[in-house]
Amino acid sequence: MKSASSSGQPTAGWVHDLSLAPPSLADNTADGERLAMVLKQRTGAGFIQIDPPLLERLPNRLREHGFRVRCTLFRQGRNWILVEAGPVDPPNPPLGAAIDLGTSRVAVRLLDLVSRTPVAEAGFDNPQIGVAPDILGRIHYTDQPKGLARLNELIVAGINRQLQAMVAALDRKLSDLHLAVLAGNTTMTHLFMGLSPHWMIREPYIPVTNRPGVIAATQLGLSLHPAARILVFPNAGSYFGGDLIAGILFAGLHRRTHPAILVDVGTNAEVVLGNRDWLMACAGAAGPALEGGVTRMGMMAGQGVIDAVSIDAENNRWLLHTIGEVPPRGICGSGVIDLAAALFASKMLDIRGKLVPERCQGRLRTLDGMHHLVIVPADATASGQELTISQADLDSLIRSKAAMYTILETITAAVGVTFEELDPFYVAGTFGSFIRPDAAVTIGMIPDLPRQRFKTLGNSSLEGATKILLDPAAFDEIDAIRDRVTYMELNVNQDFMNRFSAAKFLPHTDGARFPSVV
Amino acid sequence: MKSASSSGQPTAGWVHDLSLAPPSLADNTADGERLAMVLKQRTGAGFIQIDPPLLERLPNRLREHGFRVRCTLFRQGRNWILVEAGPVDPPNPPLGAAIDLGTSRVAVRLLDLVSRTPVAEAGFDNPQIGVAPDILGRIHYTDQPKGLARLNELIVAGINRQLQAMVAALDRKLSDLHLAVLAGNTTMTHLFMGLSPHWMIREPYIPVTNRPGVIAATQLGLSLHPAARILVFPNAGSYFGGDLIAGILFAGLHRRTHPAILVDVGTNAEVVLGNRDWLMACAGAAGPALEGGVTRMGMMAGQGVIDAVSIDAENNRWLLHTIGEVPPRGICGSGVIDLAAALFASKMLDIRGKLVPERCQGRLRTLDGMHHLVIVPADATASGQELTISQADLDSLIRSKAAMYTILETITAAVGVTFEELDPFYVAGTFGSFIRPDAAVTIGMIPDLPRQRFKTLGNSSLEGATKILLDPAAFDEIDAIRDRVTYMELNVNQDFMNRFSAAKFLPHTDGARFPSVV
Repeated sequence: MKSASSSGQPTAGWVHDLSLAPPSLADNTADGERLAMVLKQRTGAGFIQIDPPLLERLPNRLREHGFRVRCTLFRQGRNWILVEAGPVDPPNPPLGAAIDLGTSRVAVRLLDLVSRTPVAEAGFDNPQIGVAPDILGRIHYTDQPKGLARLNELIVAGINRQLQAMVAALDRKLSDLHLAVLAGNTTMTHLFMGLSPHWMIREPYIPVTNRPGVIAATQLGLSLHPAARILVFPNAGSYFGGDLIAGILFAGLHRRTHPAILVDVGTNAEVVLGNRDWLMACAGAAGPALEGGVTRMGMMAGQGVIDAVSIDAENNRWLLHTIGEVPPRGICGSGVIDLAAALFASKMLDIRGKLVPERCQGRLRTLDGMHHLVIVPADATASGQELTISQADLDSLIRSKAAMYTILETITAAVGVTFEELDPFYVAGTFGSFIRPDAAVTIGMIPDLPRQRFKTLGNSSLEGATKILLDPAAFDEIDAIRDRVTYMELNVNQDFMNRFSAAKFLPHTDGARFPSVV
Repeated sequence: MKSASSSGQPTAGWVHDLSLAPPSLADNTADGERLAMVLKQRTGAGFIQIDPPLLERLPNRLREHGFRVRCTLFRQGRNWILVEAGPVDPPNPPLGAAIDLGTSRVAVRLLDLVSRTPVAEAGFDNPQIGVAPDILGRIHYTDQPKGLARLNELIVAGINRQLQAMVAALDRKLSDLHLAVLAGNTTMTHLFMGLSPHWMIREPYIPVTNRPGVIAATQLGLSLHPAARILVFPNAGSYFGGDLIAGILFAGLHRRTHPAILVDVGTNAEVVLGNRDWLMACAGAAGPALEGGVTRMGMMAGQGVIDAVSIDAENNRWLLHTIGEVPPRGICGSGVIDLAAALFASKMLDIRGKLVPERCQGRLRTLDGMHHLVIVPADATASGQELTISQADLDSLIRSKAAMYTILETITAAVGVTFEELDPFYVAGTFGSFIRPDAAVTIGMIPDLPRQRFKTLGNSSLEGATKILLDPAAFDEIDAIRDRVTYMELNVNQDFMNRFSAAKFLPHTDGARFPSVV
């Protein structure tokens, strides 16, 4: 039996346009094997799985199109899966969906799998917020009758709705979505797959799985192509989720010769540092000092939200930027960090983070015995009421920034790396990406490194998921990263508390650490 | 992270009883990976796939049973699939179903996958017979609207009914059936999977697939355990089906140092010979001389059917055996061969296979100018009517036996092996297994070898399917066999026709070939 030869565009993605040699008496290879043989040559796959529904259509599909087909592949464990073998039809290329499943927010990006370019991007609030805003509340809710099923349905339906809206806007169909890749924290991943997170919060804290792998979309209730597969990123543990693994993949931390660090500031603060030889990770959720959350005091970025602040103290002029450049209605996390840095620089905040009344001039209010500072006077806000920040809000920020710095100090000390050695210093996450490094250094949230070392990654979880859809070679890196990550439990011991106390000053009790600030 | 240790009964089958080390703070491996790790150690598997429905149940299942579980595994391509992880419950061990899917008859054997012993066996007529008795008729029927769907439904429903009846008789449930293995000819395999055989009978004769592999039972409409997998044996081509591959596996032809031969006489005559280095196959369906079919003249074996005949010519005494030892109502294929051999030995048949009137005494009838021989007088049959065989029936048998011998002569000549070198000479198939070698040699259907070389294999297709359920190590042999088989098209050329003409004599024109007969 001769091997079927092939031609067609070589592609570096998951989609291959093939021209098969038509069968003949001298080469009577069956249709399925004829296709599989060429796909193996093209990809190096050891085994191509073609499920019966596609096999059923294959003979006519091949003959109608003169043995030219466009194949979408994916991988499931050690098998390669043929998801679809359709006509080579440039106006309607197969699509893939990259999904960042956050506790608060879900981001979805659609990609043309042939040109390997993004074609749409959107986000929506995680509908589980209505049940409980935080992770722990959702985990407890799963112990109620049908609680897990309800949380699962909420997120699956939410993703389906979002995908439907996005493909409709592109004048495409859900069945054009051949592949999906999802990255989220361990709890969100469990709820998305309908797996109980019950044992994750009970000693000894055991997830159902840390390696969901690739799953048929139908098994998860997703409305994609009937044979679509979805990769769910693995987790390194209960507190180090697939979103972080995706972030490492995107940043390429695991390929570097020099140590670099990735700090993801979202609902939690998660940190990983390392290089191609080792990766050490920890997460802020482990320490009670971070329970307040870095972002609690701010609101989500959006129209009318202040995201940048600068103060010209000499002239008492405040320069504010609002998203959309409309009258302000609130302030987001990066705005609060800017504000705190500006208040400290203009000496309206002292080194303990307390408002200094004599510096605040007409902007200070006292309500129920607590100082409040006016950020925007009533006549300039969207609501017509003063926009203020309280001393309690500022105290919370100080605790959060101190926790972040302490985590960074602890993890670098644990592996014997100095801050100075870290290059680059990646900042990622839905919140983290908007932080101005200069402001974060000023308040001592992150170390005082040359500013060009700080690199903003954006939604690195979404970017990592995207990378898998664009580059099959990245597929194998996921497990390699996951296996290399050592997760360090943050012991809130005396050492940690001493570091934390020292970090609660602006920028730090040890001013020598922040030469560019002090 | 430490590796979870395990104990439990080592098994050589697909079912493993495991005791996992319970999780601890020092070993917080997730449940899925804890189980997968031990299964990998136990089996050498590179990747264990656990689908979401099983993952969902896993945490409670493990904790309810003190981390002791009984796991049923199977393989799909390069992945190992965890079908079930249930309680270790000796009275209800998981079952497997071996299925021989014949054109006429379907045989089903259930096996206890723990003790690895058969627990039930049954058969039923292929319900597609109602549409068309033969392969070609069924293939043509698939060109009618919904023809393929109807043939597919008939066989799937038939198998489901049979399985339901068998598990009910054992007081078990369909969900206890975790695995199935099916072997059939290429057309039956296609119809079972809902794949069109349309192109198999049109030049250049291309099946949809020759390697169906392992498929989720739900995808094929089979009512087994929801996660059950079924292995469908691969075919070597349109005319060399999975039933034959299963037969080779069972006979162990592919492991022998000396050449052996396997002759499967069912609806067609299929032959494979070889050893561990090579396997050469051909099938009788390729030759027009076999179109009448070896079995056309007889009826299926069953109650009241004559299966053995001996004639004491000197005393004109006929010794008949009927299945069930009740009054005869017909004669089956092996009975006809016995009869022909006995008629020839007692000179009632001449060397051309014609009835010799002067030797037939009172048993000869002439109807419409054709001789008929009375096998059983009217007063001794079930119907009260004479049971006869016509000259035309005998002519058909002669053509069939000549075709068989010619095929054997052709294939051995093609590979340069003599009949004398063949040891053993396996005879298999629903019909073939009942042939007495001595009778078949007497009429020149098979070569005149020492009788102890002939080994009856029974339903070797069912036995091969059984072997896969009992012995995971055999799994890899299937593809190795399939890849090693060279299929030889039987060219009905002048050589073939010359051999065929010579073989139409009893036992052969060249009597020297049959020293024990002539």
